Amino acid sequence: MKLCVIGLGLIGGSIAKECRSLGYEVVGVDENPMHQEKAIDFGLVDRIETIESALMMSDVFCIAIPVDAVEAVSLSLLDQIKWTQTIFDVGSTKANVCAAVKTHPKRSRFVAAHPLAGTEFSGPGAAILNLFRGKKNIVTDEDLSDEDALESVLTIFNDLGMQSLFMQSEAHDRHMAYVSHLSHVSAFTLSLTVLDIEQDQKQIFNLASTGFESTVRLAKSNPETWASIFDKNSSHLSDALDGYIRHLQHFKQVIESGDKVAAKELMQKANEIKRVLNGLKMNVVKLS
Amino acid sequence: MKLCVIGLGLIGGSIAKECRSLGYEVVGVDENPMHQEKAIDFGLVDRIETIESALMMSDVFCIAIPVDAVEAVSLSLLDQIKWTQTIFDVGSTKANVCAAVKTHPKRSRFVAAHPLAGTEFSGPGAAILNLFRGKKNIVTDEDLSDEDALESVLTIFNDLGMQSLFMQSEAHDRHMAYVSHLSHVSAFTLSLTVLDIEQDQKQIFNLASTGFESTVRLAKSNPETWASIFDKNSSHLSDALDGYIRHLQHFKQVIESGDKVAAKELMQKANEIKRVLNGLKMNVVKLS
Repeated sequence: MKLCVIGLGLIGGSIAKECRSLGYEVVGVDENPMHQEKAIDFGLVDRIETIESALMMSDVFCIAIPVDAVEAVSLSLLDQIKWTQTIFDVGSTKANVCAAVKTHPKRSRFVAAHPLAGTEFSGPGAAILNLFRGKKNIVTDEDLSDEDALESVLTIFNDLGMQSLFMQSEAHDRHMAYVSHLSHVSAFTLSLTVLDIEQDQKQIFNLASTGFESTVRLAKSNPETWASIFDKNSSHLSDALDGYIRHLQHFKQVIESGDKVAAKELMQKANEIKRVLNGLKMNVVKLS
Repeated sequence: MKLCVIGLGLIGGSIAKECRSLGYEVVGVDENPMHQEKAIDFGLVDRIETIESALMMSDVFCIAIPVDAVEAVSLSLLDQIKWTQTIFDVGSTKANVCAAVKTHPKRSRFVAAHPLAGTEFSGPGAAILNLFRGKKNIVTDEDLSDEDALESVLTIFNDLGMQSLFMQSEAHDRHMAYVSHLSHVSAFTLSLTVLDIEQDQKQIFNLASTGFESTVRLAKSNPETWASIFDKNSSHLSDALDGYIRHLQHFKQVIESGDKVAAKELMQKANEIKRVLNGLKMNVVKLS
């Protein structure tokens, strides 16, 4: 299979690198000359092509660019591909791109995917092998894709070591607001809060421990990537933030009231997250 | 040195285990019979004693119990020890205990400490070797402790592999509200928010990824321990939560406004936490 990866950052670069190590022929497209150069230096792709020449020779196109650019690039590619070619995207929001391509005559050549993997790093230098192995991939609105297109894309994710699950794009975005996007906002704002305080209290960071480190880790994430994701999922994320702020205000009231029993009960309930995280470890999949 | 550890949970148990492995004679005191049994089974202590008999034979007493019980136990021990004996506590809040012992005639035999180490687990079964190695220990109001008492305690922390730093107990509690207690509330409430949503949407947790896992990890922490800590540090923590909620509300407004440039700027500022976390890794210590 000849794969063309458009966008050679953390996700696209890692897909390219892994597929190449599996024997795929992988060409890369990236408008950033530095990314092009690094992708070659790091051996992520066999070669860099223009989109025009990639269209002449690739079977499958993987779009791995910030989610606010995915719609236009997907539409433009759908305009140009043959019926034997397949496009998939790997963006973290799915409703926007699925809505954009919905009425395109070649919609059925498009597969909407979201591999649930990543790190807080970005760019071609962040691309690594085994980023996806053992993790889950979500495919949304799969009933709108041709069977052979879906199969090509599922084969790639299978080769990456991922288990693919199916759901509607709206449900995907709503769930992601809670289990991914909210975590990121929580970490970004925790960082902002603590940096604020640091201004006149330099030593505060000498006291930071591993607990703080883990909670704030996602605050190192790429602002460009996440500004687009938050924008594309702003309505669900706004609901999630309302819920989070409400819980924080309640927790604060309980602490201020000195009611230790109530505080303990809240934390006992919060402890139930162990069940979730254990499920995560066991890779339990029971999607309805 | 004969060490008596009072409270054989995660912290006390780990101190006991490590000191014992270093050749100290370590006796344990714990009012919970299950903890007593496990401490022996897991080899955390040489033997279990009553506090009365421990008072007859130990040189140094380590108080490792929930912070709301530390004051009473410290005062009671100070009443009973000889001038050659030393007491230190390892609680996560320091102003309360320092205020409680301040006017005790034997105040100078007391050392207030806070080793910055831990995991989200609790009880004697959570006690591990090397929990403290390479980490920092804070000693507060050290000018109120006798030189030999301070030296005994610093020797123990040094043997545990920790670097000890000094600050006033008020400053310690204020800083901890931001770099430790706020992270815990943030994780507990993130868990509550997501569990709320789960009620009618079972599959949400199949979508949880490693980013969510790291942000929410501290929500597994012990409710008993943390209810006491939050209670003892409620005023500073309340300030920290005000700041955090303010930042979240602002972030939410920015996302809702669709101003991606402003969102990106906020995240670029939040990215500065890299500097902090790198400092953490390099173990930079420049306390004033």
